[in-house]
Amino acid sequence: MQRTFRHDIMEEIKTRFANRALKDDDVSQETLEALVEAASFAPSCFNEQPWRFLVAKGERKEKLCAVLTPQNQEWACRAPALMLLCAKKTFTQGGKPNFWHLSDAGCALGFLMLEAERRGLTAHPMAGFDRKKARETFDIPEDLEVVAAVAVGYPGDLELLSERNQERNHPAARRPVGELML
Amino acid sequence: MQRTFRHDIMEEIKTRFANRALKDDDVSQETLEALVEAASFAPSCFNEQPWRFLVAKGERKEKLCAVLTPQNQEWACRAPALMLLCAKKTFTQGGKPNFWHLSDAGCALGFLMLEAERRGLTAHPMAGFDRKKARETFDIPEDLEVVAAVAVGYPGDLELLSERNQERNHPAARRPVGELML
Repeated sequence: MQRTFRHDIMEEIKTRFANRALKDDDVSQETLEALVEAASFAPSCFNEQPWRFLVAKGERKEKLCAVLTPQNQEWACRAPALMLLCAKKTFTQGGKPNFWHLSDAGCALGFLMLEAERRGLTAHPMAGFDRKKARETFDIPEDLEVVAAVAVGYPGDLELLSERNQERNHPAARRPVGELML
Repeated sequence: MQRTFRHDIMEEIKTRFANRALKDDDVSQETLEALVEAASFAPSCFNEQPWRFLVAKGERKEKLCAVLTPQNQEWACRAPALMLLCAKKTFTQGGKPNFWHLSDAGCALGFLMLEAERRGLTAHPMAGFDRKKARETFDIPEDLEVVAAVAVGYPGDLELLSERNQERNHPAARRPVGELML
């Protein structure tokens, strides 16, 4: 399936998709920090910056891998790094609930994914994991919501994937813009 | 205040900030649709695409302006267009609650803001508005959460702003990356 673009759109937005074909080539800690730095410039309510990134390589990555669904483990554990996006539920000043903690964290993840794309990397977000187990495994405090897992790696050949995953490893179509506008 | 960048980061991420100095020059409907199209390529859980954008120009914009806080009205109502980001709370297939509707909608807003930046536009998100009044004004269905207002326009001179807003119209600092990593 090919995506069609009606307008002139940023290259990184056009080329990004949920690629499962990731190589096991290393991604340096420096590069992972650059991705988090890119994310940090997202806007947030009262500049709270509620996003937190658990960055996992090596043994820690194996632990994070263990909380993914088997379907995601099949391809995502090959990636050299996994991340866990969390979002602080309350405002640091005053401690009141922050309605925008999830949307602001999602925005930061968007910045991170496009920066990854610019660097020839794939940052593939996943909802398919056990959020409760992730919290337990890494002792995530109650004030942080566990939001998404992210596989980070360099894109590789389709042959890395099972036949079933090869077939579905393409950009997914989108609703026409008219359906998104109120 | 200047931001510092420790790593090589996408130009649009580096230059974007919550600019209040917006001109009243028109932004075409075509361009606004291009921004929504850019947003539409964000990833989402089960490709639900829970984001919806109310796009307001002219009379509709005046109505949306009326639900902003007075502090935001002061600068945001000069913009030729305002948007209201909403997020569908439930999955279209099966109707169950979608935990990721807010984070996915925030991600789409991130894509929209960076596409705006690439086009020399500013898309400035706001939490400072009455979400309940916005729902009532535009008869937003219960299944859509009202998330954020966004002012869209071309950046202009600081002189467009009140003295107080001139002083604070600069990029805000960010937490060091180390504070964001778990």
